[in-house]
Amino acid sequence: MYSDFELASDRPAYIQVKDYLKRLMTTGAFQADQKLPSTRELSSLLRVSRTTVLTAYADLEDEGFIYPLQGKGHYVVPAAANAQVGAQDGGREGKEQRIDWKQRVNGYAKLAEEHDLMKHGIRAGKGTISFTSIAPDEKLFDLQNVKRAFLDRMSIEGNVLLNYGYAKGYKPLIDYLKRYMENKGVDMAGKDLLITNGFTEGFNLLLSGLNQNHKRILCENPTHNTAIKNMRMHGFELTGIEMEQDGLNIGMLREELDKRPYDLAYLVPSYHNPTGIVMSHHKRLEAIRLLSERHIPIVEDGFNEELRYSGSHVAPLIACAGKSNQVIYLGSFSKILFPGLRVGWMAADKELIDYMESVKRARTIHTSTLDQSLLYQYLHNGNFEKYLKRAKAEYKRKYELASECCKKWLPAKRLSGDGGLHLFAAFEPSFRTRDLLDACLKQGVAFTPGDIFYTDGGGQHTMRIGFSRVSDEQIAAGIERIGKAARQLL
Amino acid sequence: MYSDFELASDRPAYIQVKDYLKRLMTTGAFQADQKLPSTRELSSLLRVSRTTVLTAYADLEDEGFIYPLQGKGHYVVPAAANAQVGAQDGGREGKEQRIDWKQRVNGYAKLAEEHDLMKHGIRAGKGTISFTSIAPDEKLFDLQNVKRAFLDRMSIEGNVLLNYGYAKGYKPLIDYLKRYMENKGVDMAGKDLLITNGFTEGFNLLLSGLNQNHKRILCENPTHNTAIKNMRMHGFELTGIEMEQDGLNIGMLREELDKRPYDLAYLVPSYHNPTGIVMSHHKRLEAIRLLSERHIPIVEDGFNEELRYSGSHVAPLIACAGKSNQVIYLGSFSKILFPGLRVGWMAADKELIDYMESVKRARTIHTSTLDQSLLYQYLHNGNFEKYLKRAKAEYKRKYELASECCKKWLPAKRLSGDGGLHLFAAFEPSFRTRDLLDACLKQGVAFTPGDIFYTDGGGQHTMRIGFSRVSDEQIAAGIERIGKAARQLL
Repeated sequence: MYSDFELASDRPAYIQVKDYLKRLMTTGAFQADQKLPSTRELSSLLRVSRTTVLTAYADLEDEGFIYPLQGKGHYVVPAAANAQVGAQDGGREGKEQRIDWKQRVNGYAKLAEEHDLMKHGIRAGKGTISFTSIAPDEKLFDLQNVKRAFLDRMSIEGNVLLNYGYAKGYKPLIDYLKRYMENKGVDMAGKDLLITNGFTEGFNLLLSGLNQNHKRILCENPTHNTAIKNMRMHGFELTGIEMEQDGLNIGMLREELDKRPYDLAYLVPSYHNPTGIVMSHHKRLEAIRLLSERHIPIVEDGFNEELRYSGSHVAPLIACAGKSNQVIYLGSFSKILFPGLRVGWMAADKELIDYMESVKRARTIHTSTLDQSLLYQYLHNGNFEKYLKRAKAEYKRKYELASECCKKWLPAKRLSGDGGLHLFAAFEPSFRTRDLLDACLKQGVAFTPGDIFYTDGGGQHTMRIGFSRVSDEQIAAGIERIGKAARQLL
Repeated sequence: MYSDFELASDRPAYIQVKDYLKRLMTTGAFQADQKLPSTRELSSLLRVSRTTVLTAYADLEDEGFIYPLQGKGHYVVPAAANAQVGAQDGGREGKEQRIDWKQRVNGYAKLAEEHDLMKHGIRAGKGTISFTSIAPDEKLFDLQNVKRAFLDRMSIEGNVLLNYGYAKGYKPLIDYLKRYMENKGVDMAGKDLLITNGFTEGFNLLLSGLNQNHKRILCENPTHNTAIKNMRMHGFELTGIEMEQDGLNIGMLREELDKRPYDLAYLVPSYHNPTGIVMSHHKRLEAIRLLSERHIPIVEDGFNEELRYSGSHVAPLIACAGKSNQVIYLGSFSKILFPGLRVGWMAADKELIDYMESVKRARTIHTSTLDQSLLYQYLHNGNFEKYLKRAKAEYKRKYELASECCKKWLPAKRLSGDGGLHLFAAFEPSFRTRDLLDACLKQGVAFTPGDIFYTDGGGQHTMRIGFSRVSDEQIAAGIERIGKAARQLL
């Protein structure tokens, strides 16, 4: 005993002594009513000061782990030792009851596990050039301004920031984002805004809170795989509409709409994941018209809308829809700014937001006030604009390089991506990008096979190339290697 | 035009000009291809420097809102103006399609709204002495140490903290909390830990991810109202077990268990909300035995477990259960430390945690890394221990004062609360605390009527008095007023 105690230098010593003794008691190394060493003894045994032991004993007494006897020292409180079932009766109940949790979880949890790409996705070895991520490059983050935003906000609001906030969100951020949406051309009259833990929570609130009359959602094919996972987990069937170079195939959309009814449409009009396509203004209006005639609400995923490198501004669907209350916009800065800060928002009809606010309150109370207030101050200080300029310049260079390399090296039939953080390539229909991936992994390159984005089991001949976190040299070298491997397979 | 432009001093001027012009374009005040004022003109119209206007114009051009014509100035990009459906065809589609969202939301969302106490709870006027909150008193927060923890962690890890994290949680915090649980006597072998957005997310993950074979949960009666709300929202029927001064009525528990099967038991063994009762060690062991025999998993709400003022340490159920994998512990520092930081945790069987991790990833990706890393550093620095001493001393004084005042003034039949941040009073069965509340509100005092905590529509004669955020003077004055009003009603 005591020889395994090791003192760490960066944590108060008395806490370490206290924790160490607690563990001795709770693991049964100390018995009920056993006498503890004197403070002098323990101080020499653990090689800490006597004051440290005195403070630790005082705390343990205060927390009800030990009790003093006048002039005799300290003793272990019986309830602190041998607290377990069966400990008192000498292990009479030897056979311990076990629950088979696999039998207790339902289909929803099982689907979540099966579709968990972090668990079952691509395992690339160290040193691999990986095109699988479309997260922002953290080297671009301006930590100094983030620190300043934190300290600024703390000195303005102080302690209040650390107590409970509101389910709807942090008021200054809500107001900021309402103006932000208006600047995108959104008519916010009759609409409202709810802060969410990123896009994902917003989408989940909707999927949980809306009626499933037809159990079917219409979306692009391919589309965002996390969205596919969640729609399936909620029991929806999906109809995917083919993508053309300027967005949805409108003819096919009309056809499918005539075939059967839908509860919802889920669309990613800008820098669509995974194709990188920006839907044209004309098609946006057409899609809204067709869905509006059938009273089908549209969930608009504002994914990377801010990442425009060139070309005209294209208004989001919720702006195109004008006064209509049909579009629910899910926004997030996470994809370009700071994903670690889990802040997104839902802009939609007031009445709907009111219900979603209550569902959010029931599920997560509210989004971290610290995240929200820091983000607000960062935006308010004008840092986002500066960051965006730098990030756009950087990503644009990478985009052009990656695009050029793909054209040069990849024997692909089609390449899409109008900007954003990724490109999408389609080979001839018989090609299998899973086979290509196997070959590439051996050569230290990884990418995302496109099939995970398809609603109908298709896309085996496609791939997504995320370049945001890959250096220029590695973009060139990596795509060359993929291209060579592809030619060998063809 | 332009006369309504007002320059705020705390935000870069060029951004304000840019936003102002964007709004003019998107709201239709500018037409497609309309010429903008020259930079010189606009600078004088808006009373800002010409550089400011030049920067704003450059940005707008870059974002695709305006285009330049050599030597002629800047013009509005057509897509930036008149972006709405119907704008191009002169409003041909006059009758705008509206969705009746009330018809679109389901029973789950409606229940959330109905049971939303923030919307339908007690409305107390300004200056009211309010005993409704059991949130911590933010005056106790040590902002300096929170700032230090933030800056410490930022300088250790930097940018990485702002990029995506893991669904399971921030590794150093997970490791810290595993040790923390072991110090409570928990055998973590075969168990694991998942970080959640507070208790509420953890509880929701379980309710969504576990099978509903019997659609029934066993819990204390009364119990935590947010838990009741969520269990009902998930379609569970509740059986509430009567509370005695040392916890659950074990006889009644046995009886109910013999009557019918249950999917789950939800228990709050320490500082039970709302009664403030700490379940005795003996009853903990009995409850575990009875539930274990029937293979019923126990969700243990570790609510305010840290807030012990006096008495022996009482091991949590998950520690009492030893090697068994039956207990799921939901912990949170939010209730005493910082509720604004949405960090809680679930400690349970490894296999179960693995499923819950995937459900969490599907629903919120992960908990704010900033919150987690700040909390970790704060804990690691030993600040929690210091804070807890100060907080306990403060709450203990308030508890004793409130307790004394209740005994002196309240004509209650029973008073409970072994510490924590609240007391619970029961009057004679015919008494109506809702009537008392009406009378008290008129005299500027508010409390929480107990009925919201009951699973069976009972508790009309009970009330919860939360004192954590009320000053000593107001505790005395408020309880005296409640007492006098109660005597008048009796």
